[in-house]
Amino acid sequence: MAIDTNPISRLSTVLIVGPGLLGGSVGLGLKAAGFTGKVIGDARNQATLDMAIKVGCIDQGATDLISVAGQADLILIATPLKTFRHVMQLMRDHLKPGAIITDVGSTKCSVINDAKAIFTAEQLKHFVPSHPMAGSQSQGPEGASAQMLKDRPCIVTPIPGNDPDDVTLVKNLWELLGMQVIEMTPQQHDEQSAVISHLPHLLNVLQVQTAVQMGGLEMASTGFQGATRLASSNPTIRADILECNRDAILTVIQGFETQLNQIKQQIKAGDRKGLLEALEQAKNTRDQWATDFEHRG
Amino acid sequence: MAIDTNPISRLSTVLIVGPGLLGGSVGLGLKAAGFTGKVIGDARNQATLDMAIKVGCIDQGATDLISVAGQADLILIATPLKTFRHVMQLMRDHLKPGAIITDVGSTKCSVINDAKAIFTAEQLKHFVPSHPMAGSQSQGPEGASAQMLKDRPCIVTPIPGNDPDDVTLVKNLWELLGMQVIEMTPQQHDEQSAVISHLPHLLNVLQVQTAVQMGGLEMASTGFQGATRLASSNPTIRADILECNRDAILTVIQGFETQLNQIKQQIKAGDRKGLLEALEQAKNTRDQWATDFEHRG
Repeated sequence: MAIDTNPISRLSTVLIVGPGLLGGSVGLGLKAAGFTGKVIGDARNQATLDMAIKVGCIDQGATDLISVAGQADLILIATPLKTFRHVMQLMRDHLKPGAIITDVGSTKCSVINDAKAIFTAEQLKHFVPSHPMAGSQSQGPEGASAQMLKDRPCIVTPIPGNDPDDVTLVKNLWELLGMQVIEMTPQQHDEQSAVISHLPHLLNVLQVQTAVQMGGLEMASTGFQGATRLASSNPTIRADILECNRDAILTVIQGFETQLNQIKQQIKAGDRKGLLEALEQAKNTRDQWATDFEHRG
Repeated sequence: MAIDTNPISRLSTVLIVGPGLLGGSVGLGLKAAGFTGKVIGDARNQATLDMAIKVGCIDQGATDLISVAGQADLILIATPLKTFRHVMQLMRDHLKPGAIITDVGSTKCSVINDAKAIFTAEQLKHFVPSHPMAGSQSQGPEGASAQMLKDRPCIVTPIPGNDPDDVTLVKNLWELLGMQVIEMTPQQHDEQSAVISHLPHLLNVLQVQTAVQMGGLEMASTGFQGATRLASSNPTIRADILECNRDAILTVIQGFETQLNQIKQQIKAGDRKGLLEALEQAKNTRDQWATDFEHRG
């Protein structure tokens, strides 16, 4: 057991399902924060577990989730979004009563739908969905680092019926790892994620597609480089997000189109005053946001 | 006179109208390349000229363009786009016969329209439009550097009737400064610039506007940071571009909308196969482009 002042001192064993880049970073973060309990990792490939043990993310590995699910006081689901339902299904009949479950899924409504379809009402009380917003260009446990989580936002989206103590514990866990916890509803999370994460990716992809269709790659430079970086993201992960967050993304695309139509009309009409106002407002907002963001980081 | 092997050895005096970040970098590049002629700078403010002399961009300054226009064998117009017509008007009755004129304007059709409206047919023969695609976060001659131009693309868009020797000289000039010269028509330049430079800026602005309208700034992170960087550009310069390159930009927005509608339909229909194909194609194109680009730089 960890020391008493530690908010997660009531946990003896943490199970990380998918100790990859993000899951592995949580394992390293726990160690760095002085967690003295056991961290078990579950992965399909032994090689992932070997690497996770080597870099110190986990103390023990298992390729058979069922065999270890019952040992954990807290379970972190850190596998790809589309595997959540399968992971939950494997665990459900083997969980320790009262075990707290959280996750790192980048959409929340779909994850909660998965949980509602699989978990018992009692298990659902202890499922506190999270989205730690951190990442890097690396993949797998070899890229994991406690530092990656520091000062990044972590969204926690409690669901009706959640045990308040569990919600507090999950929030304390992320804070212990150095993250800035923000609580909101799953719907708010999904729509705001669509705005600030899924729309940027789509626009980066569309920027590349437009250049493929209309030409210009030969003379593209640093502006284009920055405006297309997200198009290099993992297509499978991104397709999962587009599927799991479909409704919020379509709503946000509609909001984007409203803005696009307005600026298009201003360009067409040669409305210099309107354009200048729009560009100045966007610049001011972005500059202020960037200052705040860099301050935080 | 410079040495004979130097492609610009026939030039004794170069006049840079607007020795700011880009104009000043050309001055420094000339010096670094061994140009031994005189570089004159013209600016409205004496302070700009003093700074340009101090950092070594120019040998001599003038706030009165008319008084120095006649001395130059080559004139580089490096002022803001919207001032081009005024600059041309000031010079036209004072140019040395046969003086070569080029520029750094980021749109080319509008600049050529300006030149056609002001210059004589004889002067037009010697006007070879250019667009050196380089920049930095800095402003003014204090930010100028010969290095900034190295390995960047420089688009040269000759116009019908141009003296072929002048076209060769202007291309050689940019190559001498280390730039990768690409020749195309002014229309091609403007449409491709709209694709790889003006559309990215607009999408960055629209991304910010969408976040202002729909929320999410509080949890925005590095992805949003990269996808909005261009929204922090100078609004006046950007409004000038939107005005001067209006037609090409509207055409490119239309091309973008075609791509947007397609991906929107795929998301709506849950067409995972189509989405994956699109995301993979965009990723492959972008990764290949980035490899080539970083190799170049």
